[in-house]
Amino acid sequence: VVLRTGVGTSTTDSIVFMGRDLCEDILGKWDLGGYAFVCVTGREANDSEARLVNAVMLASADHGFTPSSIAARLTFLGAPEAIQGAIAAGILGAGSVYLGANEQVGRVLIRVMEGRRGRTIETIAKEEVERALASNERLPGFGHPIHRPVDPRTPVLFGLAESEGYLLEHCQLMQAMHEELERIMGRQITLNAAGASGAILCDMGLMPSAMRLLAIASRAIGLMSQLREEEVSPVGQGIWDLVRANTEYLWEG
Amino acid sequence: VVLRTGVGTSTTDSIVFMGRDLCEDILGKWDLGGYAFVCVTGREANDSEARLVNAVMLASADHGFTPSSIAARLTFLGAPEAIQGAIAAGILGAGSVYLGANEQVGRVLIRVMEGRRGRTIETIAKEEVERALASNERLPGFGHPIHRPVDPRTPVLFGLAESEGYLLEHCQLMQAMHEELERIMGRQITLNAAGASGAILCDMGLMPSAMRLLAIASRAIGLMSQLREEEVSPVGQGIWDLVRANTEYLWEG
Amino acid sequence: VVLRTGVGTSTTDSIVFMGRDLCEDILGKWDLGGYAFVCVTGREANDSEARLVNAVMLASADHGFTPSSIAARLTFLGAPEAIQGAIAAGILGAGSVYLGANEQVGRVLIRVMEGRRGRTIETIAKEEVERALASNERLPGFGHPIHRPVDPRTPVLFGLAESEGYLLEHCQLMQAMHEELERIMGRQITLNAAGASGAILCDMGLMPSAMRLLAIASRAIGLMSQLREEEVSPVGQGIWDLVRANTEYLWEG
Amino acid sequence: VVLRTGVGTSTTDSIVFMGRDLCEDILGKWDLGGYAFVCVTGREANDSEARLVNAVMLASADHGFTPSSIAARLTFLGAPEAIQGAIAAGILGAGSVYLGANEQVGRVLIRVMEGRRGRTIETIAKEEVERALASNERLPGFGHPIHRPVDPRTPVLFGLAESEGYLLEHCQLMQAMHEELERIMGRQITLNAAGASGAILCDMGLMPSAMRLLAIASRAIGLMSQLREEEVSPVGQGIWDLVRANTEYLWEG
Repeated sequence: VVLRTGVGTSTTDSIVFMGRDLCEDILGKWDLGGYAFVCVTGREANDSEARLVNAVMLASADHGFTPSSIAARLTFLGAPEAIQGAIAAGILGAGSVYLGANEQVGRVLIRVMEGRRGRTIETIAKEEVERALASNERLPGFGHPIHRPVDPRTPVLFGLAESEGYLLEHCQLMQAMHEELERIMGRQITLNAAGASGAILCDMGLMPSAMRLLAIASRAIGLMSQLREEEVSPVGQGIWDLVRANTEYLWEG
Repeated sequence: VVLRTGVGTSTTDSIVFMGRDLCEDILGKWDLGGYAFVCVTGREANDSEARLVNAVMLASADHGFTPSSIAARLTFLGAPEAIQGAIAAGILGAGSVYLGANEQVGRVLIRVMEGRRGRTIETIAKEEVERALASNERLPGFGHPIHRPVDPRTPVLFGLAESEGYLLEHCQLMQAMHEELERIMGRQITLNAAGASGAILCDMGLMPSAMRLLAIASRAIGLMSQLREEEVSPVGQGIWDLVRANTEYLWEG
Repeated sequence: VVLRTGVGTSTTDSIVFMGRDLCEDILGKWDLGGYAFVCVTGREANDSEARLVNAVMLASADHGFTPSSIAARLTFLGAPEAIQGAIAAGILGAGSVYLGANEQVGRVLIRVMEGRRGRTIETIAKEEVERALASNERLPGFGHPIHRPVDPRTPVLFGLAESEGYLLEHCQLMQAMHEELERIMGRQITLNAAGASGAILCDMGLMPSAMRLLAIASRAIGLMSQLREEEVSPVGQGIWDLVRANTEYLWEG
Repeated sequence: VVLRTGVGTSTTDSIVFMGRDLCEDILGKWDLGGYAFVCVTGREANDSEARLVNAVMLASADHGFTPSSIAARLTFLGAPEAIQGAIAAGILGAGSVYLGANEQVGRVLIRVMEGRRGRTIETIAKEEVERALASNERLPGFGHPIHRPVDPRTPVLFGLAESEGYLLEHCQLMQAMHEELERIMGRQITLNAAGASGAILCDMGLMPSAMRLLAIASRAIGLMSQLREEEVSPVGQGIWDLVRANTEYLWEG
């Protein structure tokens, strides 16, 4: 068995990452957003790409009490000496319902674009929205439990994509689907940050699975703020007390 | 019960993170390194702090086959649809032996500096090294399984710290301990990247527990490259085959 | 918000689990297999059900170096003080490829049986196998990387199910599909332990999702033996060395 | 590199676990408690040992809303398709504060007993309690947030240990420490289930680290009931709503 990898290797006096020398080419030169771009695409980020990945990842870091940050804080309550477990618990909920949404958006946009066959973006957007509604299918990237009717991150992310030159076909398709969806439903509908991020990342050439990776890693970063606060000013016990105080036991076996 | 948090909150049309408006103040303006600094200190990063955190975190991201990346790839093998689990598995080994080292370095340096009482850095460095050797205690931040006698990241990290104005007392203490340790042992000893990082982060004012958080989050980012490669060019099965082929079962019950 | 649960609750002097008093009705009277049955069905296990759940779970505990146990040992290498993280890493690979197989078997058997409409088990088995082969779909519960042509656990599990009175329709369907598959392929094909377990658990009335839960919990138990051995007689470092020694770095960026 | 293991191995037609043939010696003959005993001791359980391990593990499975089960349910909310992640999140809090207590109890009892030097159990119990109080050290195994003044599991566990012949020196020491602690404090103090379990497991010859393993694995089993209920009758969203409704954002940066 020979295990082949192109990610990286190290010798006694050097570390190589994707063909670059870590110490000469990367440390002090790249930021984490640019590095993340290389991780998920295999090619070096230009300044625009690095800026956009930084922004997209910061938009999905954790900014308050979410299932993810609550799970992390409750885990810290039992095992404060193993804070890596609290971070892990916080990202384990990054699945189909939360945080996986940008991947789903990516899959839809890429599929629809691949079936374009010369038609206008408006036409294929309309077709996809009608198809999804007819088959009672949830369109990923739309709706939000809190941000209604506008997710404040969405116009900022699209604005950044435009100024960096990445507001391209997939973003236009997402926006066209948004307009079509609002027209049919007769009301404003949130195009959420995962929807905007998924579209921008498509236009930057990422695979959908890479999009979820970015969301997971950004959450790991954001959870640091939660756990630092939990360490100095804890609420974990308070959350537990609150849940107990509002629980009703009812056995109907 | 009232749960108090200063990390963040959101309303229908805004998201606040540590007193700043995410959409106006952060997206497109901060990079992930600067954001990470705010997460673990609670105060805004200046450009130097953001640059240093980016470098320190990139130095501990995963650049090859380590226990962390192997565990992540083996987890992906069984559950490719739940890639958040693979990332989580990869960071769960960030404990006392690996990746927690910068935290331990931070604890030592802060403790020694607090007991300084007007003495020179050389004096307290000598005292600590002698104390550790006498009590057969392992000094964190020294030694490396691969990088001998020099961890190539260490001079680069200290160089960056110097040019950004953060090569201060704790870095000097770490370097003085290094010299003393080599003098006593009569041979070159690696001052590893965790040692350099822990010292720099002390000089930037971080708590030791925050240092481990940075290492964990940086690993989450680095693991993206491993899992993206595992998806397109897998080695997980090969690792398993290799282990099986080299295993000897011996029951001595 | 009122949070309703029927699982359990506790007062100052009692603990209730699914309508029973833990101290009076359960401790010293139930074994873990019977308890596991209650967990996943909500109803008390009779002796046969407890025996079968014990056997099914023991069949999927970990008995050697698997991706799961290797990931757990590598995690322990970095964080021996947080052994819960090593167990967690070991179960995170229990997904669609490994350990989730009994759930998939359960879904197939229940779906096929629901579409029976008075036909014989042989007829619907034949139809399902032909359908799967025609659509190039992998039939869960068949094949094994090591146990060929017979998984030694399968006849034992079916034998136990028979003697406890649970070798019913779903088991017969699984066996009929097995015969049909071998007939069409013209060679012996392994009906693996996950296949047998899924069929037996169907005949015991479990939901498919509950089957994966049993596999995950049984793995948590089995991993104890791996981690106890890793503590006293470690191989984690050896696995890492082995991987490194057999790795070839090749950057084709 | 040769990797040596005595846990288990498999060939095409057999599976061996700690020197026994899984199919001939274990399936249908052992229950999970007996298997767990073998996992953590390396020797076969007699009927008494199997019964006690079943009881001890059932006493620490999860019977209501605890940090562990809340974290598991919140994780399920985001990733229902990856239920192994929810189980993992639920056990990651099994650390120094929760669930690790039986290990700590084991360490204390073994240390105190090793320093006995011919004295009576009452004498060494008194000495240890006085020492801990004088140095302001928390004695593990005492106190409980809910069960006051008696943890209802404790008398049942000690009763079972007695009838199975395992109420030996370490149990007596724990009980003597309990009496001494209550005498000094002048009030009733809970000897909790972790305290009773740790003492019993000491008398059965387990290493302290093995005790935490049992607690973790038992929690994995108990969490099945939580996740099965969450699937059919969810409260995860309700917990999140409750937390949000009781949160106050206050930035004092």
